[in-house]
Amino acid sequence: MKEELLFGAAYYAEYMPYERIDRDMEMMKQAGMNVLRIAESTWSTLEPHDNVFDFSFLDKVLEAAERENLSVIVGTPTYAVPAWLVKKDPAVLAVTKERQELYGRRQNMDIMNETFRFHAERVIRKLLEHTAGRRCVIGFQIDNETKHYGTASPGVQALFVEYLKETFGTTGKLNETFGLAYWSNSVHSWEDFPDMRGCINGGLASEFEKFQRKLAAEYLSWQADLVRAYKREDQFITHNLDFEWKKFGADIAQDGYSYGVQPDINHYEAAKCLTIAGTDIYHPTQDFLTGAEIAFGGDEIRSLKQENYFVLECQAQAFKYWTPYPGQLRLQAYSHLASGAKGLMYWNWHSIHNGYETYWKGLLSHDLDTNPTYEEACVFGREWKNLGKKLIGLKKKNRIALLVDNQCLTAMKWFPIDRDLSYNDVVRWAYDSLYEMNLECDVVDVQAVDMSRYDMIVTPALYSAKESLLQQLEEFVARGGVLVSTFKSFVCNEYLSVYCDKQPHRLHRCFGMSYNQFTEPGTAALKGQKVQYFAELLKTEGAESLGNYEHKYWGKYAGITCNDYGKGRAYYIGCFTEKGILKEIYAQAGRDAGMELPLSVWPVVFRSGENAEGHMLHYVLNYSENQQEVLNPYKRVRDLLSDKVYEPGEKILLMDWNLAILEEI
Amino acid sequence: MKEELLFGAAYYAEYMPYERIDRDMEMMKQAGMNVLRIAESTWSTLEPHDNVFDFSFLDKVLEAAERENLSVIVGTPTYAVPAWLVKKDPAVLAVTKERQELYGRRQNMDIMNETFRFHAERVIRKLLEHTAGRRCVIGFQIDNETKHYGTASPGVQALFVEYLKETFGTTGKLNETFGLAYWSNSVHSWEDFPDMRGCINGGLASEFEKFQRKLAAEYLSWQADLVRAYKREDQFITHNLDFEWKKFGADIAQDGYSYGVQPDINHYEAAKCLTIAGTDIYHPTQDFLTGAEIAFGGDEIRSLKQENYFVLECQAQAFKYWTPYPGQLRLQAYSHLASGAKGLMYWNWHSIHNGYETYWKGLLSHDLDTNPTYEEACVFGREWKNLGKKLIGLKKKNRIALLVDNQCLTAMKWFPIDRDLSYNDVVRWAYDSLYEMNLECDVVDVQAVDMSRYDMIVTPALYSAKESLLQQLEEFVARGGVLVSTFKSFVCNEYLSVYCDKQPHRLHRCFGMSYNQFTEPGTAALKGQKVQYFAELLKTEGAESLGNYEHKYWGKYAGITCNDYGKGRAYYIGCFTEKGILKEIYAQAGRDAGMELPLSVWPVVFRSGENAEGHMLHYVLNYSENQQEVLNPYKRVRDLLSDKVYEPGEKILLMDWNLAILEEI
Amino acid sequence: MKEELLFGAAYYAEYMPYERIDRDMEMMKQAGMNVLRIAESTWSTLEPHDNVFDFSFLDKVLEAAERENLSVIVGTPTYAVPAWLVKKDPAVLAVTKERQELYGRRQNMDIMNETFRFHAERVIRKLLEHTAGRRCVIGFQIDNETKHYGTASPGVQALFVEYLKETFGTTGKLNETFGLAYWSNSVHSWEDFPDMRGCINGGLASEFEKFQRKLAAEYLSWQADLVRAYKREDQFITHNLDFEWKKFGADIAQDGYSYGVQPDINHYEAAKCLTIAGTDIYHPTQDFLTGAEIAFGGDEIRSLKQENYFVLECQAQAFKYWTPYPGQLRLQAYSHLASGAKGLMYWNWHSIHNGYETYWKGLLSHDLDTNPTYEEACVFGREWKNLGKKLIGLKKKNRIALLVDNQCLTAMKWFPIDRDLSYNDVVRWAYDSLYEMNLECDVVDVQAVDMSRYDMIVTPALYSAKESLLQQLEEFVARGGVLVSTFKSFVCNEYLSVYCDKQPHRLHRCFGMSYNQFTEPGTAALKGQKVQYFAELLKTEGAESLGNYEHKYWGKYAGITCNDYGKGRAYYIGCFTEKGILKEIYAQAGRDAGMELPLSVWPVVFRSGENAEGHMLHYVLNYSENQQEVLNPYKRVRDLLSDKVYEPGEKILLMDWNLAILEEI
Repeated sequence: MKEELLFGAAYYAEYMPYERIDRDMEMMKQAGMNVLRIAESTWSTLEPHDNVFDFSFLDKVLEAAERENLSVIVGTPTYAVPAWLVKKDPAVLAVTKERQELYGRRQNMDIMNETFRFHAERVIRKLLEHTAGRRCVIGFQIDNETKHYGTASPGVQALFVEYLKETFGTTGKLNETFGLAYWSNSVHSWEDFPDMRGCINGGLASEFEKFQRKLAAEYLSWQADLVRAYKREDQFITHNLDFEWKKFGADIAQDGYSYGVQPDINHYEAAKCLTIAGTDIYHPTQDFLTGAEIAFGGDEIRSLKQENYFVLECQAQAFKYWTPYPGQLRLQAYSHLASGAKGLMYWNWHSIHNGYETYWKGLLSHDLDTNPTYEEACVFGREWKNLGKKLIGLKKKNRIALLVDNQCLTAMKWFPIDRDLSYNDVVRWAYDSLYEMNLECDVVDVQAVDMSRYDMIVTPALYSAKESLLQQLEEFVARGGVLVSTFKSFVCNEYLSVYCDKQPHRLHRCFGMSYNQFTEPGTAALKGQKVQYFAELLKTEGAESLGNYEHKYWGKYAGITCNDYGKGRAYYIGCFTEKGILKEIYAQAGRDAGMELPLSVWPVVFRSGENAEGHMLHYVLNYSENQQEVLNPYKRVRDLLSDKVYEPGEKILLMDWNLAILEEI
Repeated sequence: MKEELLFGAAYYAEYMPYERIDRDMEMMKQAGMNVLRIAESTWSTLEPHDNVFDFSFLDKVLEAAERENLSVIVGTPTYAVPAWLVKKDPAVLAVTKERQELYGRRQNMDIMNETFRFHAERVIRKLLEHTAGRRCVIGFQIDNETKHYGTASPGVQALFVEYLKETFGTTGKLNETFGLAYWSNSVHSWEDFPDMRGCINGGLASEFEKFQRKLAAEYLSWQADLVRAYKREDQFITHNLDFEWKKFGADIAQDGYSYGVQPDINHYEAAKCLTIAGTDIYHPTQDFLTGAEIAFGGDEIRSLKQENYFVLECQAQAFKYWTPYPGQLRLQAYSHLASGAKGLMYWNWHSIHNGYETYWKGLLSHDLDTNPTYEEACVFGREWKNLGKKLIGLKKKNRIALLVDNQCLTAMKWFPIDRDLSYNDVVRWAYDSLYEMNLECDVVDVQAVDMSRYDMIVTPALYSAKESLLQQLEEFVARGGVLVSTFKSFVCNEYLSVYCDKQPHRLHRCFGMSYNQFTEPGTAALKGQKVQYFAELLKTEGAESLGNYEHKYWGKYAGITCNDYGKGRAYYIGCFTEKGILKEIYAQAGRDAGMELPLSVWPVVFRSGENAEGHMLHYVLNYSENQQEVLNPYKRVRDLLSDKVYEPGEKILLMDWNLAILEEI
Repeated sequence: MKEELLFGAAYYAEYMPYERIDRDMEMMKQAGMNVLRIAESTWSTLEPHDNVFDFSFLDKVLEAAERENLSVIVGTPTYAVPAWLVKKDPAVLAVTKERQELYGRRQNMDIMNETFRFHAERVIRKLLEHTAGRRCVIGFQIDNETKHYGTASPGVQALFVEYLKETFGTTGKLNETFGLAYWSNSVHSWEDFPDMRGCINGGLASEFEKFQRKLAAEYLSWQADLVRAYKREDQFITHNLDFEWKKFGADIAQDGYSYGVQPDINHYEAAKCLTIAGTDIYHPTQDFLTGAEIAFGGDEIRSLKQENYFVLECQAQAFKYWTPYPGQLRLQAYSHLASGAKGLMYWNWHSIHNGYETYWKGLLSHDLDTNPTYEEACVFGREWKNLGKKLIGLKKKNRIALLVDNQCLTAMKWFPIDRDLSYNDVVRWAYDSLYEMNLECDVVDVQAVDMSRYDMIVTPALYSAKESLLQQLEEFVARGGVLVSTFKSFVCNEYLSVYCDKQPHRLHRCFGMSYNQFTEPGTAALKGQKVQYFAELLKTEGAESLGNYEHKYWGKYAGITCNDYGKGRAYYIGCFTEKGILKEIYAQAGRDAGMELPLSVWPVVFRSGENAEGHMLHYVLNYSENQQEVLNPYKRVRDLLSDKVYEPGEKILLMDWNLAILEEI
């Protein structure tokens, strides 16, 4: 595959109301597209009857693609099962904590069911046999947005007991680890192990979720192995990793957006079997477009392999509240590139005329004709054809890592800070504050972090932390690193047992403070601003208080502390503050870490990296409906879009929802 | 049956705490009543054991009625099954999408279950044998508020597959019609057809609901046939059709009111087997009494057969928030007559002392004595005894039709416009605006509309519209009609597949505009007023824009358009506006349709028709707690209630919650 | 057992992360503690395998307690079953209206299941054999917070039918009692009796709940009999009775507090088998601490046997929003004593490190070290060691009884006054108004009331009242008593059939008024203040109106009435008013009852009684964050805490959340 940006869309010929491949390809070429993503939920079309295969629709698309010189990513079709398979063996559908799944929706199978695996394997092998040899096929996507789907079938529960046996050896150790004596839950022979669906022990239930996530990652790895047996050397394997689907105002059924750690599969584990990581990112737009979701998602996916990645799905028109304003679709596209995306595919090419996602609109509306959104995609397509070689291969070297963890997310479902403050809400508060300050960071899974790469580490609500991680963090600070941790960090071990000594466990010397009480903030303020949701009552033990609570009874306690430890410094933020206060801490911590603080002129965002030619590129993105002026904070640069040259300090004018791409020259 | 208003109440002798038929009959006569409605949920009383019948309580009531010269409507008792029947065959209770029904509440049976049908038939035959010959029995009500109860038992699902086979012939056609390839839902042999309870295809699921509604209508038709075999020529068959039960503040369990299209049976289909349509209408009162629910319900039921109808149930005291203010019960009664009701029966005579509806209070409170509400019913009873012959047989000739459709309602559960704007909300917005302007209309099922009767047609959110209906509408305008359509009209075909050409499908020439994008309105306004919920971005193509959006980015699009087409004119309202704006459009459209606009002095309402003597009658209804003055907009009239004569333009004074009935003289 | 205050905590050695009994005992002694409560949910620890017992952890605790001279209350372990028992017989878990219970949480068993009873009996017998002889064991707690858990298994339903047969004899009587003819629910042979899980008859369903409560009380009595066979004469039997768990803002899972009548067991019935009643009371604190929950709970539990009682659980730190302000823990402790508590045990000693209640924090935080809350407990411990003999044995002689009833509570779930006003909300409104006026009362179950003890009786929403109770109340007034009843009192009989004569049934002469209509108040006011939720339209028939509704249409009706009857007086409050209005009525009623009204200086609360030495004690409790001054309303007194003497009328200064204990001298 020659190194160029992949630009295209998911293409569903099988959903089209009439034959129009030629017209579609023509319109795609007009938009500067070079890739189609196909087939990821087509099992019932590919295998209409048990062991009867029909690849005719695929062939038509592949032939057309080759004719038009378009590349194709072929998806394995397994994330929605055909009706005949469920008739054959109803146990294919998952039993979850809530229900026995019924046939209908996607992603409701028991991924460990043997019948499912047998048929999934066969259809994957047939598909690969049929497509791997095609010239236009540049790679494969295995499954789609894979998760564990809550599978808790008897088979899965039996595997879990085996896993526990291996991990803990004895029921005694199991009881002790999770405190099962509580409410008479202890188990004294493995045969007595109860149905996990009723489990009320947060630690054990979280362990089960961890196990379920492991099954999901192994399932993907199994698919990758199958694909690898057929694919050509030059063909990649990717997967579409998605984020937590955050609900907002609950407007209509499909209401939500991508943000935060995915609860139901671990991205780092899942990405191991991939050649290139892929993702989808959907986000609010119109008056609510900030670029934060694009940046967070990109920073997380790029950090999985410390490599650039595909955006396998991004929004075109989608729902009524996402119809983009003029300029927004293009701004979004460049924002993905600014995070290191090397492929960008709309979901989807055309709006579907029936089915569940009729109003998750594609680039084309239901009339399958041109429209303002499609036309803006054409503008972008033309631009990157000119600029693509300048933009591709962006290398980012971030000095800040923000640590995230599935186990912490699960833990906080069991032990919530507050009804209105989930783990991912804390992550967002911590990430967005960095983002708005233009302090770029990697978003790194705790399992994968190489601390030596970073000068500053941020841990939002890292509730569950095993001893070895704490040791690493302590050494990171001792060696000269800057650590910024928030409330609810380092509270319990990897099995969600709260550490039974001084909080924060092991690191209280590093932070120079400890606490053993916390409170609902009530009317408490900090630096004159309301504290919300949660407040730890910090007692300084060497640390400097950067602000005590303003409250009749809690005034003697610190809310934020700062402490020198070894060659480094450790900040602890004991409560949920306004973003402004967090940004002050970040500014101080960033300077401590030896960084020059970037210009901060939010809602204008700067994102930088080194391009393939070795030049620094700076994306300057205006996330507002107002025209903005900024002074060039870099050396002499040329705006690749306008070809205009700016001297240091020279005024750069950005129209609403517009951008500049400054190359240092 | 001599032609007179039926005035009475549901009478449940079997719920009485002690024997008091004679006292009740006396009190009814004092209230001017002439009819009782009995027996509609008494199966366990009529048939205490399988095949053991006991009609003694019926006999007592019928004998007393004949003694007192009261008429009786006898209901078949089938809408609540006896306990012994469920013991005999538990499958009598429906399996729905949500659950296996348990014994207890009414309306939870599988209406297609053979055991149920066998026993229902037998009890109906026995009841008819027993009562059809009685002099006092003037007619029969079959079942009560019949709906499909979500039945999705295996038997019903098998029937549905038969229906699909008949309708579509092949699975190929089925797949194509509903787009089942989506998410791997296509079916390639009828044996593979899956359990509909998990279906996520909006089109197919809506087809199943349509099928369920059809079963409910057929079930009623089956009951009507049974009754017809026994009843006398002079006895009618009616049924109690109810409306959607809209929830408001969720105050207590029985909280809601009647408004809008009934989701779970189609009134037009159901009414075919009836001699006379009947209905129940419950509505907010006290400070929230507007008459709109009474008018909508009446206009809909009257339009089923273009004939006057029975109000088989209307509220007496009901719940705490419906205890009528002085004057309201009487105002309500006349409002029903003003829509064409020819029978009016309270639900119910007495407040029940136990059971689920203890606080759905009747005319009598639990003390079974007189009270202000009963006394007001007596006032009305005396008045209509004097005026009845003037009021009966009201003929209404409305020139406006408002089209409604079950399929559109179902579709919008799957594809909602907005969480807070259902199909019936749009219908209400469209209807109430007409009502408040005194533009009387028929409310007509799309299956039944005879467009040649009307000068103006209104289509609120007529989302699903088959080709032939669109052709009719186009011709209606071409011939000189005035069409007023709102957003989300004509989007998809009868199977909920969005039309894949220009929107609004087929009619874009008629409207002189098209659109292929829509949006959440956000901050957009129209004519200075906030737009809510939904906005289509209309591009005029010949039409005049009656208002462009006021918005930074959408300002180039029209929100409302008007277009001359053939001899007629077509208005399109692309967004949800304040009622005031809709009323302006109606006023313009009404004038276009050649109507003289009626006086509009809301909250005083005018409702008119021709009485049996051939005189025009005008009900002038004051829906407010304030005294109102209006100037007589008619010729010389006499107020039948006060006997006062008003010259044209003369001042008419209306006390709070009071009315005049003006006869043109 | 020598007569001293029991002061201690629940102690869970089996939940401890490491061996530290000695350290714990030392810390307890420092806090002045003298009792541990142990073992109440330890079945899986005590009996790790079927019929294999292990009392080693118990022995360790008992040995340490004897060494340190601490007393121990041993709980039977039955309220959470071990996993092996459910494996052995899954039917041990209850089938409820909502579900088949799964293993995991506590309190989910079918208390009538024979397997459960067999094993519960065996483990209780073994435990008693093992511990009854220990010197330190002063008593036993049977089970914990026992309720019926919604058990509706086939066995329980069969027992219910037997109960109905015994109670009603014939199905005819059953049908008549509950009005089963309604919606065809009548039953004509016992074999036809349907599954109660679907029942929609409020009366019959409430009868089933009453039956379930009876089973729960009998189950406790069965345990008491088992214990009695082993225990020493000097050992008591207690049980932890809890209140309704009221939800507030739904902050986190464990969100709620104790207030009002317990729906799922009847305290009076349950307490019959106990030597000493026990309870747990959890309540809002910080800015929301009022003492009302402590006072209500104490007044209810004390009234069960007209004897002092144990607070077996009270909160230490608990959740983030309950972390006590300085002074609050101590104020709470004394408030319990002021209601007649003779034992006070924190739940729990230490914060648990895992499991469901990790954040229901104990006296010790997770670091198991000292902290401000523990230190405040030490202050209290030292004080009562000095003052204990003065405080113990408090005798209260209240002249007011507030009547409460389970049946009324159940009834109002079926027939709610308003979504936002439950039975317990009315009870709280009625009780708290007394509390804030320092009018101390007993809170008495209607089954247990001895009216001759009281001068004034208050009945909040005593909806269900059998004839004999009404007769007693009538006689109470006739004899000279003062009755204060609220809306929704005396509406129906014990089977929830509304009385079919004049309301309020039987007592309308006593109240000198009647009503047969009621309404949502809408905009109605009374004495210038908004009426909420519900308003009966009272017609005076001899009574004086103490306020008519201020409303255009309801102004002719009284909202509150007062009537002389015999030698007494009866007040009726027909609507939900502001507390201020209710307090005015109480003041007038109190004076009528011959009471001298106590000083009312809320948020300072007075609670009084006679101590064991025969002196009057007055607790003066400052429930606010502000310093307060009150003038001593008593004779000459000495503050036992400060030793200061106050003359009558002398100023007493109370710091925030502080108190005085005044002994008359």
